[in-house]
Amino acid sequence: MDKRLSIVVIEPDPERAAPIVDGLREIGDHDIRIISEETGLARHIAECRPDIVLIDLANPSRDVLEELALASGPTERPVAMFVDRSDEHLTRAAVEAGISAYVVDGLRPDRIKPVLDAAIARFHMFQRMRAELAATRAALEERKVIDRAKAVLMKARGIDEEAAYALLRKTAMDQGKRVAEIAQQLVLAAGLLSCR
Amino acid sequence: MDKRLSIVVIEPDPERAAPIVDGLREIGDHDIRIISEETGLARHIAECRPDIVLIDLANPSRDVLEELALASGPTERPVAMFVDRSDEHLTRAAVEAGISAYVVDGLRPDRIKPVLDAAIARFHMFQRMRAELAATRAALEERKVIDRAKAVLMKARGIDEEAAYALLRKTAMDQGKRVAEIAQQLVLAAGLLSCR
Repeated sequence: MDKRLSIVVIEPDPERAAPIVDGLREIGDHDIRIISEETGLARHIAECRPDIVLIDLANPSRDVLEELALASGPTERPVAMFVDRSDEHLTRAAVEAGISAYVVDGLRPDRIKPVLDAAIARFHMFQRMRAELAATRAALEERKVIDRAKAVLMKARGIDEEAAYALLRKTAMDQGKRVAEIAQQLVLAAGLLSCR
Repeated sequence: MDKRLSIVVIEPDPERAAPIVDGLREIGDHDIRIISEETGLARHIAECRPDIVLIDLANPSRDVLEELALASGPTERPVAMFVDRSDEHLTRAAVEAGISAYVVDGLRPDRIKPVLDAAIARFHMFQRMRAELAATRAALEERKVIDRAKAVLMKARGIDEEAAYALLRKTAMDQGKRVAEIAQQLVLAAGLLSCR
């Protein structure tokens, strides 16, 4: 955490907010904002675009926990949540809502840094997995659409698979587009023309 | 944690092991084993096949942390690690080694249960993502091999794509195998016969 971070703290209770801010100030010269009310929370957080969100909830209900988790954008940034008490079901709900660090009865100023470190590390690890999954899914979808486009060309022009792919590839190069894009357009057009 | 869990505790220091065991006993009637030496750790843990591993490390070095993480099999079961002190780099190393819960200076008997709950929840979430990634990758690989097999058949028999796929599909049904398996065998055989 060498660079200056923008940290949003969601804490309705000013008495509890003070030691959190003290703990954060000790970590470094970060930009800290406290949000104490729930109204418009998702919008406020989206506007702040913080690097990390820290939520303190004395005694969470499942609904409040899930709402706060959602509003804080746990797929956009690391979110650490401190609660005074929890149970198995609440803990699972928090983890599945995407909270990167969930700490039960552990809010002490000197423990904030290691929790934020863990939240950041876990968030990045998840981001990498999510990106890998998205890329693999996209590759599969592209392959499917290229297959369909090849089949359309093979039938319409009476050419073999290699020739169909070569034609897609040449068109893509001529247009400065990706083969998958040309394939997608061809499949769409063929559907409109009913010439599949 | 209603069912009886098999819990392995990795703790070289008997004085530190006692309160951990007390804490675990309070959670429920679980099967607890303490392993105090590092020699053959991975083998011991593999033999025990525990439901969860709890590691306590007073003052970890990065090498020891990574060795213990690896030996405890963090892709097989949830692993929770308690350390007395850490820094950003150690925390990142722990998270990237697959530790499901990493707690700095937070080992208190009454905090063991929430940490194990979080470790279990996080492990299952990761397992789901890993399974989804593996399935998507497999689907992509299968699609590639089926494509290659179709191309082999189209060339060898002078048939079109649909006929090639129908032939693969019929062969798979006749043999009681999956289309991708038949495709894989065909591609292999075609390579051996150099008839691609």
